[in-house]
Amino acid sequence: MSIDRIRHAGLREKVMSAEAAAEFVKNGMNLAITGFTGAGYPKALPTAIANKAKALHAQGEKFSIGMVTGASTAPECDGVLAEANAVHFRSPFQSDPTLRNGINAGNIAYQDMHLSHVEQQMRQGFYGKFDIAIVEATAITENGELVFAMGIGHGAEAVKNADKVIIEINEALAEGLEGMHDIYADVGLPPHRKPIPIVGAFDRIGTPALALDPNKVVAIVLTNGGDRNSKFAEPDDVSKRIAAQVIDFLDHEVKAGRLPKSLLPLQSGVGNVANAVMAGLLDAPFEDLTGYTEVLQDGMLDLILAKKMKTASATALSFSPDALQRFNENIEFLKDKIILRPMEISNNPEIIRRLGVIGMNSMIEADIYGNVNSTHVMGTRMMNGIGGSGDFTRNGFFSFYVSPSTAKGGAISAIVPMVSHHDHTEHDVMFIVTEQGMADLRGKAPKDRAKLIIENCSHPDYRDMLRDYYDRALVASQKAGGIHTPHILLEALSWHQRFVETGDMRIK
Amino acid sequence: MSIDRIRHAGLREKVMSAEAAAEFVKNGMNLAITGFTGAGYPKALPTAIANKAKALHAQGEKFSIGMVTGASTAPECDGVLAEANAVHFRSPFQSDPTLRNGINAGNIAYQDMHLSHVEQQMRQGFYGKFDIAIVEATAITENGELVFAMGIGHGAEAVKNADKVIIEINEALAEGLEGMHDIYADVGLPPHRKPIPIVGAFDRIGTPALALDPNKVVAIVLTNGGDRNSKFAEPDDVSKRIAAQVIDFLDHEVKAGRLPKSLLPLQSGVGNVANAVMAGLLDAPFEDLTGYTEVLQDGMLDLILAKKMKTASATALSFSPDALQRFNENIEFLKDKIILRPMEISNNPEIIRRLGVIGMNSMIEADIYGNVNSTHVMGTRMMNGIGGSGDFTRNGFFSFYVSPSTAKGGAISAIVPMVSHHDHTEHDVMFIVTEQGMADLRGKAPKDRAKLIIENCSHPDYRDMLRDYYDRALVASQKAGGIHTPHILLEALSWHQRFVETGDMRIK
Repeated sequence: MSIDRIRHAGLREKVMSAEAAAEFVKNGMNLAITGFTGAGYPKALPTAIANKAKALHAQGEKFSIGMVTGASTAPECDGVLAEANAVHFRSPFQSDPTLRNGINAGNIAYQDMHLSHVEQQMRQGFYGKFDIAIVEATAITENGELVFAMGIGHGAEAVKNADKVIIEINEALAEGLEGMHDIYADVGLPPHRKPIPIVGAFDRIGTPALALDPNKVVAIVLTNGGDRNSKFAEPDDVSKRIAAQVIDFLDHEVKAGRLPKSLLPLQSGVGNVANAVMAGLLDAPFEDLTGYTEVLQDGMLDLILAKKMKTASATALSFSPDALQRFNENIEFLKDKIILRPMEISNNPEIIRRLGVIGMNSMIEADIYGNVNSTHVMGTRMMNGIGGSGDFTRNGFFSFYVSPSTAKGGAISAIVPMVSHHDHTEHDVMFIVTEQGMADLRGKAPKDRAKLIIENCSHPDYRDMLRDYYDRALVASQKAGGIHTPHILLEALSWHQRFVETGDMRIK
Repeated sequence: MSIDRIRHAGLREKVMSAEAAAEFVKNGMNLAITGFTGAGYPKALPTAIANKAKALHAQGEKFSIGMVTGASTAPECDGVLAEANAVHFRSPFQSDPTLRNGINAGNIAYQDMHLSHVEQQMRQGFYGKFDIAIVEATAITENGELVFAMGIGHGAEAVKNADKVIIEINEALAEGLEGMHDIYADVGLPPHRKPIPIVGAFDRIGTPALALDPNKVVAIVLTNGGDRNSKFAEPDDVSKRIAAQVIDFLDHEVKAGRLPKSLLPLQSGVGNVANAVMAGLLDAPFEDLTGYTEVLQDGMLDLILAKKMKTASATALSFSPDALQRFNENIEFLKDKIILRPMEISNNPEIIRRLGVIGMNSMIEADIYGNVNSTHVMGTRMMNGIGGSGDFTRNGFFSFYVSPSTAKGGAISAIVPMVSHHDHTEHDVMFIVTEQGMADLRGKAPKDRAKLIIENCSHPDYRDMLRDYYDRALVASQKAGGIHTPHILLEALSWHQRFVETGDMRIK
């Protein structure tokens, strides 16, 4: 029974229905809700809040909330709330189709934030006061401490920061999760901060559960539901070719003595291509790999189960249904090989730089000078958000951006004259990799980068168009007084406009 | 006598003329040359190398070098080398007119880098091998340790990294500089890095001088010349209005209990406006200020001399002639109030985030969504470079960008529909301040930012044009499927193109 997971007698008395708990949520409130890449989000409260919103709206009353999560949640959280028009502000990351539509229709204000900044900005009061935290948990200990679920994200800060706390205890979660979390509570605010004492990717620096103020807990709701476990695509030929190039390069660096045979701690972004790189490492000539990432997906789990990877640190576990089963079945083996941390620690610039994390993230597009767009389709439409990609790109030892060279059956080029939105600048991006090839941008001036990216990474269908743009940009920019970064200002974004108008970036 | 400053007998034997020392520099070599914002650059060698280049070029021979400095140098360094066509690669920052022309004519490859990344990328081999380091110094100790000059920048890494070392001892430097430097040599490479043990902005963690391998020192040249000490403009009305708004905001935060009365450590970018903010602090209601910055200019010096600022940490001292005199005259008073560090430490993300540094930097332009261009004029022409602005913007407690709302007598607006080059993204920039007003972008979605920036920061001459662009962008982007970040793709950069064509961003 779920209630047995509440091992603190006083807190058992707070158990109630989701509908009763939703009564604490009032119009205009600012909520901190756990959830990170479809893991660790509340399963029952959002629907209860959405139903309340619909009922109030039907009566002509206003009802909407601001919500700050760890990262993306799921249809039963972001989806139901957006569908009920119950959200007026959302941060820092999302990927739900209904919520995305609300954002792109201009109805929901969305602030797209570096994940490593969220908890400190909550603590600093940059988001204003949080009225209620809604937190998914595996259990509550005898001492009234909260054991988080499959993801932590900003959960520890949410609980500390909010005036009231509502906890969902999810019986579907493996009890073996207890002990996997590492809650470091001492980040604090300047000028009283100390170094974060992680020197190895698997160092434990905190406690397995979070101390709770029982007086702040206004409701506990018992649930039994799975996370948003979506299946990964089997690595296709394009993904495998991208993965092979990344792995070849790393192997080359090992052979040149510039990387240890165990590499450096790996970060892998969300999605099929990033997952394919992890899958490729199963057969790569490296041993004793380590992970220091935000989301641990199937690929990294299988590296651990295959004993290619020794340990991994993350803030959330996001698995396909099959991988979840492997995780649950092997949880005793995995217990001393996986750490879940608050995202302030998993994505912390201090730690990422110190450890020398190798960051690999997917992109929407890169331009010929190495700027990367991770967030906006055709410059104006929000896809998901920047997530932790900037935390790793800016501070890591290596920063890879991977993508197939085209999308939509060839109608979109992932390599464009100028990205239509800039999330990672030429100052930060080190490697662009497509199935066509790789561009190593380190120590290169913009014009040298352009040649490499066009010749190595672009799809043959677009290569002549890119060469033509670059050649004409050299002439146009000379007239404008400088050809450090050649561009034709009125044409730089024309590929995107052509796609909007004709459905194809190619000139017919 | 300069030679008395070489207190190590063995190294005295390495003294020679600049011309003789320049013979070590061969065509195609990769040089690490000290210098940071017109301080600490070699005064004699560059001219000797330039003369050698000219002589060789006259004989039809090739001669050019790659050079990585701390930041900008001066006409006697970057200037003479560029004028002699002796530079084929330059990184990470520059501000010399002759060098800039070479870059913008497409003759010199320039990589514009975050300064905090330079030393680790040298150590990691991302720039290739360094043949020679040329380093300005105040003295060499009895034990053969190098005492740096008015700036350190990447000097410590340059000496360690390069095969050979050439030292210039500059007699014009105050001997009292000895003891002001703090060389922390233990940053190292992953996976063996430890926390950098700075917990207060003035903590000393290293040694006052750098241990030298005497066998690597191939030449010592004696010089007697001043740094590039240019006069700051007296704060004008526009600068004072910008400064007043920053100070009012900080005062408001102190009164609200969100900042201590001593604020948090201050970083101030280079230039007149940033200097004006420091000047404004002389009369502000704060006490016991501290500085944690890359360049310490007149404004911060005067805060220390006036006992408004307790201590300051920097990597270089860049003064006007008057301020240099005040510095030299008060050097005994200042000795326990100023620390000079390697730029890997002054600009380190770990330290900037831990200390909660308040970053204030100038910009070329910002757009209506809060993206900032620090480097490119009209999108293609390199001005100076990003310097450390990104290090502080990305990791600081607050990130301010300041600029007059117009330039060139009103022909250029500092607030544009889309910046023509992105150095700091909407994810990082917190405050835009012009003499018109301030926009607080924290916790704001793009459309809310646009209203704030247009209404608060833009110049009245451009406000209607910006409102008109934004209103039409809302319509255009709806057609393109999303109005999260409204833009008209073919018009977004048209203001810059109009300036290139007509010399004015305004529609006549």
